[in-house]
Amino acid sequence: MITKADFQLVRSLADKSVRLERGLFVAEGDKLVGEILQDGGWPIERLFTLAGSPYASHPRAEQVSAKDMERLSHLKSAPRSLALVRLPERRVPKPSAEELVLCLDEIQDPGNLGTIIRTADWYGISHIVCSPTTADCFAPKVVQATMGALLRVEVCYTDLPEWLSEARKGGVPIYATTLDGDDIHSAELTAGGIVVMGNEGKGVSPRVQSLTSHHLYIPPYPHNRRGSESLNVAIATAIVCEIFRNR
Amino acid sequence: MITKADFQLVRSLADKSVRLERGLFVAEGDKLVGEILQDGGWPIERLFTLAGSPYASHPRAEQVSAKDMERLSHLKSAPRSLALVRLPERRVPKPSAEELVLCLDEIQDPGNLGTIIRTADWYGISHIVCSPTTADCFAPKVVQATMGALLRVEVCYTDLPEWLSEARKGGVPIYATTLDGDDIHSAELTAGGIVVMGNEGKGVSPRVQSLTSHHLYIPPYPHNRRGSESLNVAIATAIVCEIFRNR
Repeated sequence: MITKADFQLVRSLADKSVRLERGLFVAEGDKLVGEILQDGGWPIERLFTLAGSPYASHPRAEQVSAKDMERLSHLKSAPRSLALVRLPERRVPKPSAEELVLCLDEIQDPGNLGTIIRTADWYGISHIVCSPTTADCFAPKVVQATMGALLRVEVCYTDLPEWLSEARKGGVPIYATTLDGDDIHSAELTAGGIVVMGNEGKGVSPRVQSLTSHHLYIPPYPHNRRGSESLNVAIATAIVCEIFRNR
Repeated sequence: MITKADFQLVRSLADKSVRLERGLFVAEGDKLVGEILQDGGWPIERLFTLAGSPYASHPRAEQVSAKDMERLSHLKSAPRSLALVRLPERRVPKPSAEELVLCLDEIQDPGNLGTIIRTADWYGISHIVCSPTTADCFAPKVVQATMGALLRVEVCYTDLPEWLSEARKGGVPIYATTLDGDDIHSAELTAGGIVVMGNEGKGVSPRVQSLTSHHLYIPPYPHNRRGSESLNVAIATAIVCEIFRNR
């Protein structure tokens, strides 16, 4: 039986502070819930389903009406299943030149963050290290936009200048995309290292930029045109990943 | 003086039918309004500004209060200027092998469409031909996401199977991204032609797919991995454009 407190809990998990306090996040939709159940490494606290969901007969499933699901859901159109999942513990990875790591310096839009996580998954990137000012990856809109990639890509939050200083001391290449960088098509790229992507409006912050070792530029077409145009940050991230992974 | 009818008009332009009936769309923000004023080819019907806008002294500017601007705006945070702009007349381009044209088969998310238009602009693509079921490019959310690119990229709507049949008869190469396509990195690509991108969930429709001449696939990394992951359609579009323009 779903209670008023249940509704309040699920709705309140839109807030990061409540997610941290309760140690839970919301996962919606049969596809994502199915992947979580199959993965096994993501403990589910509650599982609400409509009668039509393939998970309606799961031992943990609590059946709810379509109207109740609409009240529970954070999405525009209510899903057939909704789970409350334990927040995982995340450790900040040690900087290494062996793997390609994404670093996000104040990405604010939840849709952009979700798309970046999904893209990272496609390109076999296992770790994303974010500034504390970057959107939270367990916000309902981000979870939704990742399309399940959140289960495979570890996203953590830390003081970027500190973490990048450590990387720099260890000789790990640190790339950032900037407007004055070298053409990414002809630049020398290492297989591993750190790629920093900056805020939607301001780009990479000066403090972080001072810690990078290589500046890259994605040229428009035709190449000699430098207008007022720009690329969305999730798009730029994808192009950088595509080029690093296929050089 | 701003009237109740003005508020109603601006708000109602969220609806495509009202936009077509009135022949107007809403452009918000100093950057976009500035580009429209500078371009000259986009007649402005009304221009509402806050006192702090750089366009507050424009001869057409009607000054409004911050509170009124909030009521007018379709955005989460109200802009300093908002213009009602005449919808342009759009002709469907003749299919040609000389230029690279994007073709959108039922892209539904306004954010995706806006990002695709912005990316097309970056890659020097002048025409996007859409199915009538694709989101409308003059919807407030799309206009916003294009960041001004809508002024430079001509987006039109037509019956895709008919238009593609004409292209095919003329020998214009028609590419589509599919899961069974050839690796885009090694496939032969022409400088011009048509690239079709499909719906967020369903991909390119079977009818349209039957009219294409080349199927392309963007492989994940590592290349032998074919999991349940996928790329967002705006991301896939960007990668295809990046590869076509830098082959």
